[in-house]
Amino acid sequence: MSFDVLQEKIIAKKNPTVAGLDAKPEYVPEHIRKVSYEKYGQTLLGAADAIWEFNKGLIDALYDVVPAVKPQAAYYERLGWAGMALMEKTIRYAHEKGLYVIADIKRGDIGSTAEAYSDAWLGATKVGDVLCEGFNADCVTLNGYMGSDSVNPFLKTCKERDKSVFVLVKTSNPGSGELQNVPAGADDTVYGLMAELIEKWGAGTEGKYGYTMAGAVAGATHPDELKQIRARMPHTFLLVPGYGAQGGTAEDVQYAFQANGHGAIVNSSRGIMCAWQKTGKDGLDYQQAARNAAIAMRDDIARFTTIA
Amino acid sequence: MSFDVLQEKIIAKKNPTVAGLDAKPEYVPEHIRKVSYEKYGQTLLGAADAIWEFNKGLIDALYDVVPAVKPQAAYYERLGWAGMALMEKTIRYAHEKGLYVIADIKRGDIGSTAEAYSDAWLGATKVGDVLCEGFNADCVTLNGYMGSDSVNPFLKTCKERDKSVFVLVKTSNPGSGELQNVPAGADDTVYGLMAELIEKWGAGTEGKYGYTMAGAVAGATHPDELKQIRARMPHTFLLVPGYGAQGGTAEDVQYAFQANGHGAIVNSSRGIMCAWQKTGKDGLDYQQAARNAAIAMRDDIARFTTIA
Repeated sequence: MSFDVLQEKIIAKKNPTVAGLDAKPEYVPEHIRKVSYEKYGQTLLGAADAIWEFNKGLIDALYDVVPAVKPQAAYYERLGWAGMALMEKTIRYAHEKGLYVIADIKRGDIGSTAEAYSDAWLGATKVGDVLCEGFNADCVTLNGYMGSDSVNPFLKTCKERDKSVFVLVKTSNPGSGELQNVPAGADDTVYGLMAELIEKWGAGTEGKYGYTMAGAVAGATHPDELKQIRARMPHTFLLVPGYGAQGGTAEDVQYAFQANGHGAIVNSSRGIMCAWQKTGKDGLDYQQAARNAAIAMRDDIARFTTIA
Repeated sequence: MSFDVLQEKIIAKKNPTVAGLDAKPEYVPEHIRKVSYEKYGQTLLGAADAIWEFNKGLIDALYDVVPAVKPQAAYYERLGWAGMALMEKTIRYAHEKGLYVIADIKRGDIGSTAEAYSDAWLGATKVGDVLCEGFNADCVTLNGYMGSDSVNPFLKTCKERDKSVFVLVKTSNPGSGELQNVPAGADDTVYGLMAELIEKWGAGTEGKYGYTMAGAVAGATHPDELKQIRARMPHTFLLVPGYGAQGGTAEDVQYAFQANGHGAIVNSSRGIMCAWQKTGKDGLDYQQAARNAAIAMRDDIARFTTIA
């Protein structure tokens, strides 16, 4: 139920981190790209083929270290339908390796459309008499600006198929405060109100670790606000972007966890995927480099956070 | 520049409406589905094939009546990669028929990711030395909750390739007020602040009709707020969902326009796509029914709004 599956994987691996899988051609070592471009030309198909090899290699190198992966939809969409086929294959392969998959899609739309997004990413679509699964992730990120009817269709699917969502509260980017930090309601902020709404939307769906199916995104780059969000959202599992490349540290992200080290997962994308760019071996060691970076991140976070 | 292309098409057709293309299998008449399911089975490929035939037929029936179409990404994503291939083909076909294409994607993410989304939907992606176009719409919808750095990458592409965006302000769904209508800032609301931000983000990109590249979404289901938004956003082109099936009327949507009838476009999806369901001919007349509905909508809106 709810985030139990993810929390259990985190406990088993003593590692509350998720490896981002940003499908950027420029992150793929030259020797892999070369083969794909020879096969398909410098086309979206060629790029998707190269990234497929890279994603598989990364998953093979990481699956016994990290509990989860997070493909970022934007990079897959950038490769058109070939990228979306790559997204499907990547999610399937990650599942074969026992990983929890968070599709970072940040969707949000009116009820009937939210239902379609929910079918696409967590559920299934009826074609004639047949139920056809689409991307079949375990969890997605959502934008709650449109209100409860943009989130509820996802929560319905979560209940039916044991999945979860993360709704944006306070994001890690420099401009996040322009709307999110404006004073709002009674002595609150826009992101504070969003935090309250998410706790309300999720109420009643708590799993055995006490977290609802409606998680929240709270960036590592704002540690004071992270602390505050953790306190205000006791039943909410947090996804924490912004560690590493964006500037968040292990000291910062400790505030996302509860006293027992539960209730949060920290993302790193470039830090793991692009670790090979710092070893001077032209990416021939990209798997070892990614694995080392993931282990270093796990150990870095463990300096401040102990998982019971 | 900016929304000039769209405003010109609206003036030429004396029709400020956009036909939604929601790729739902259940909207497609039985005789079309039957052929596709025989060819591909009751699969996502089969559904995508049926909707491709339907979309083509709708575009053929509508292209000299409406200035624009609006495919809703959720319904295409629901069909996995086959749906995304369908989205690409649909946009290409609509362009062949001279239509302006608004991809309704409601995306929003941190800067580097927003860049990827912008490449995917409005721009192009570099693969090796080659620039590859993805979905290549004319305009997309965005969610600005994350702030200026989630919108600016799109505006950069808009300037380079003469495209535009619509950012959510006040949406048409029942739950829209939960966050959007909360009092915020100095005597304002969350959606009011978003309106101010959008006017600011777009400033300096006005085209010959006076509208910036940063349009806004404002629902027909809240006419008082629509009136207020129109007044507060004098340089902003508005996309108005909620007419018809969701309850908005021609009387309501008149407030989205400026005195010369410029500056807004009203969407109808089900009302046009599903018009055949009300004629009792099992969808054999779906093209004529869609065309009649689009003409009726144009004439209905003209009762209150005259385009100079």
